[in-house]
Amino acid sequence: MTITDIVVTPIAFRDPPLLNSAGVHEPWALRTIVEIRTDSGIFGFGETYGDIAHVERLRAVAPTLIGLDAFAIGPMHQRVAEALRGQTGDDRHGLTGKISAPGTIDRVYSPFEVACLDIQGKAVGRPVVDLLGGAVRDAVPYSAYLFYKWAGHPGDEPDQWGEAIDPAGVVAEARTLINQYGFGSIKLKGGVFPPEQEIEAIRALRDAFPNIPLRLDPNAAWTPESSLKVAEALNGVLEYLEDPAPEIAGMAEVAAKAPMPLATNMCVVSFEHIAPAVAVNAVQVILSDHHYWGGLRRSSHLASICDTFGIGLSMHSNSHLGISLAAMTHLAAATPNLNYACDTHYPWNAADDLVVPGALTFVDGSIPVPTGPGLGIEIDRDILARLAENYRTCGIVQRDDTGYMQRFDPTYERKRPRW
Amino acid sequence: MTITDIVVTPIAFRDPPLLNSAGVHEPWALRTIVEIRTDSGIFGFGETYGDIAHVERLRAVAPTLIGLDAFAIGPMHQRVAEALRGQTGDDRHGLTGKISAPGTIDRVYSPFEVACLDIQGKAVGRPVVDLLGGAVRDAVPYSAYLFYKWAGHPGDEPDQWGEAIDPAGVVAEARTLINQYGFGSIKLKGGVFPPEQEIEAIRALRDAFPNIPLRLDPNAAWTPESSLKVAEALNGVLEYLEDPAPEIAGMAEVAAKAPMPLATNMCVVSFEHIAPAVAVNAVQVILSDHHYWGGLRRSSHLASICDTFGIGLSMHSNSHLGISLAAMTHLAAATPNLNYACDTHYPWNAADDLVVPGALTFVDGSIPVPTGPGLGIEIDRDILARLAENYRTCGIVQRDDTGYMQRFDPTYERKRPRW
Repeated sequence: MTITDIVVTPIAFRDPPLLNSAGVHEPWALRTIVEIRTDSGIFGFGETYGDIAHVERLRAVAPTLIGLDAFAIGPMHQRVAEALRGQTGDDRHGLTGKISAPGTIDRVYSPFEVACLDIQGKAVGRPVVDLLGGAVRDAVPYSAYLFYKWAGHPGDEPDQWGEAIDPAGVVAEARTLINQYGFGSIKLKGGVFPPEQEIEAIRALRDAFPNIPLRLDPNAAWTPESSLKVAEALNGVLEYLEDPAPEIAGMAEVAAKAPMPLATNMCVVSFEHIAPAVAVNAVQVILSDHHYWGGLRRSSHLASICDTFGIGLSMHSNSHLGISLAAMTHLAAATPNLNYACDTHYPWNAADDLVVPGALTFVDGSIPVPTGPGLGIEIDRDILARLAENYRTCGIVQRDDTGYMQRFDPTYERKRPRW
Repeated sequence: MTITDIVVTPIAFRDPPLLNSAGVHEPWALRTIVEIRTDSGIFGFGETYGDIAHVERLRAVAPTLIGLDAFAIGPMHQRVAEALRGQTGDDRHGLTGKISAPGTIDRVYSPFEVACLDIQGKAVGRPVVDLLGGAVRDAVPYSAYLFYKWAGHPGDEPDQWGEAIDPAGVVAEARTLINQYGFGSIKLKGGVFPPEQEIEAIRALRDAFPNIPLRLDPNAAWTPESSLKVAEALNGVLEYLEDPAPEIAGMAEVAAKAPMPLATNMCVVSFEHIAPAVAVNAVQVILSDHHYWGGLRRSSHLASICDTFGIGLSMHSNSHLGISLAAMTHLAAATPNLNYACDTHYPWNAADDLVVPGALTFVDGSIPVPTGPGLGIEIDRDILARLAENYRTCGIVQRDDTGYMQRFDPTYERKRPRW
C-alpha cells in the first residue's frame, strides 16, 4: 500500500460575514484538500487550512512522503518533521498566536495522516473510528456555533441568516440553527462587543433556552480583570468560558478565581504547551482539534493526557467542509472522555460542501458516525474543481479578518486584549 | 469480526532461582494465555500474569466480552471496567504495591486488547506494529537482565547459568548473556545484598564492559538516604537508577539530589500516578509495560505523555514467554520516544516458550520486528497444553518469592526498605 501520488488542492468557499475579536470573515474561506493515492488504487482525503504559507509547506512536504506505506504514519510524522526543519508558522489572521516548530509539524502532518487513515479504512473495509479503537458513541453531538454577524457582506444582499448584532439577533440565530439541526448546546463567539453587551446576549440565550448548556468565547479579547468580571456575572450560566484572556499566564490568573471551568484553543495548542499549563492550572478544558494536534491518532493521545491530568475535553473548529466534519466525527466517536458537544462551523459553509450528501446528516444535533470504509464519505470531484477555481479567482490567499473589517471601518484596530 | 469465544489458560514454566528484594523466584513462573476466537475463524493471543486472583478476574470478565467486535477495543475497555466494578488487585509477591481500581482494569484488559490487535492484524494482513502507527525502528534493542542467583534450585542440579552472588559471578553472567544474545545494555536486579556490595558489582560490570550502559534496580529496597549514597557512588556509571526508594515521595526526595535520572516501574504504574509524580518531579524515566498500562494502544498514550512532559521512556518486564515478547517488540518498534533498550526476562525462560521458533530471534541484542500478520507468531498448541498441565500440577497458584526464600532461610524477612 505504497503512496504513489499526493495532490494538494487549495480551495475557497463562500463564508458569511461572521464577526470575531480580530475583525470579520471575508466572503471566501480557504481550505486545502489533500488527496493521497496508492499503488493499490485506493485513495484517501484530508482537509486542512488554506493560507498560502501553509499550502506552500504542504506542497514542500508532500513529495517527501511518496514511497511511504500508508500504514506508516509514525514514520510519516518523522518525515514531515525532517522536511520542515524547524520552520515555524505565522498567524496573520490574529486568532491564534505564533505557531511553534512542533505545532507547525503537527499542522502540516494532520491532513496526510487523515488521508492515510481514510486509505487504511478502505483497505481493511472498516470505518476510521474502528482504527481509533472503535466507537464508544454511535453519534457525535455538536453545538450550535453562534456568531455576531452582519446581515450580508457589504454590497451583497442579506444572507439567509440575517443580522445578529444584539441579544435579540443572537437568540434568533440560535433558534434558526437549533430548529434546523437540533443542537443541544450553544456556543457564542464573543470578543466583538464590550463585555457587558455579550453578557446580556448570554443572559438572553439563557432565558430563551433555559436547559441548553452555554459557552462564550471572546478569543482572548479581555484582560484578566475584565475576564473575571464576566466570569462572575455569568456564574452558574456558562458550562465553560473559553479563552477569556491571552496566554497561559493570563488564563491562570483568571482560572484561580473564576467560578466556571476555563477552556482553550489558543494558549494550549501544541503538546509543548501542556506541561506549562498544567503547572499553573491555567485551563480546565482543552478544545482538541485534529487539524493542529497532529491528526486523529495524536488527538487521541491528547485525550489520554487530558484524562490523566483531570482536564476536560471538548473540540474546536474553524470554517471547514465535510472531510473535516467526517474526521472530527470519527475521532469524537472513539474518544471516551470527550465531555462536551463539539464545535463546528459546518452549518455556515455546508452549502459549498464537496462531500456527496447523505453520509453526514445531523440528527438531533448529532452526526451519526459514518459506517462506510475509511472516512465513509465520497468526494464530488466536480465540486472540488469548482472550489479550486474559486481559490484561483477569489483574490484571497491569506485569511485577513482585520484587513477586511478595515475596508469598511478604517478606524478599526486589532487589539488584544481589547477590553 | 465478532468475538465468539475466549479461552483463558493459566500456565507454568520453569524459572531459575533469581534473587530480588522480596526473596527468590520459585521453580515455576506463572502466566496466563488468553485466546480470543471470532466468527471469521481468525483467532488471536495475549499473555498476562498468572496469579490466581488475576486468573479469576480474567475468567469473570471474559464472558462479558463475547459478542464485541474485535476492532472495538475502546468499548472493550469500558466493558472490563464495568465487569470489575471497582475491584482492586492485591500484590502478594511484594514487588509492586496494592493495585488501584483503574490499574486493575488496565491489567485485566491488556491481554484481551493484545489478542484483538493480533486478530485485527491477521484480518487486514498487517503486523501489529502497523496498527500502532508503523515501525520507526526495524528491530528493538533489549538489555541483558542480570540477576543475583543461586546455582540451582535447592535440591536440584546447578542450572546452565550457575551461581551469581558476587561481582565476579555477575560479570560472568553478563558475559554469558551478551555472548549468546549480543545485548548492548545491562540491567542488574539489585536489592538483594547490602548496597555496598551492589555498588561493587556495578563497578565490576563497568570495568568488564566499559562502553555498555548500566542500570541498577533494587526494587525500592533502600531508604532515600541509602539511595542517595548509592547514587553518588555510581555518579557517571549508571544511565539510570531504577526504583531505589519506595513511593513517589521517596523517589522525589532522591531525585532532587541524585546525579542520574531515576526510573520507575513501582511508584508510577497506572495513569492516576502520573500527575502526582510530575508535580514533584519524582521520576525522570517511566518503564512502560503493556501488561499493566492497559495494552499496546494505551501504552502508546503513555509514551505520548512521557514525551509531552519530558519524561524518558524505557520498558519493564516480568518473567514471560514469546507472546509477550512479540507484543513488546511491536509496541517498542512503533514508539518514537523509547529512549532505552527494553528489559526482558526472556532468556531465563525461553526454553519453555510456546511460540514456534523463528519469529523471535535476537540479532545483536535486538529482536527484528516480526513481519507476519498480527503478532507475527505461531503458537505450538502441544507446548501450550504441556504448560497448562504444569500449572495444574506444580502446586503454585500465587507467586511468593518471600515464602520460597523462607523455606531455606526461616529467618528471612520481607522488609521495604531493607537498608
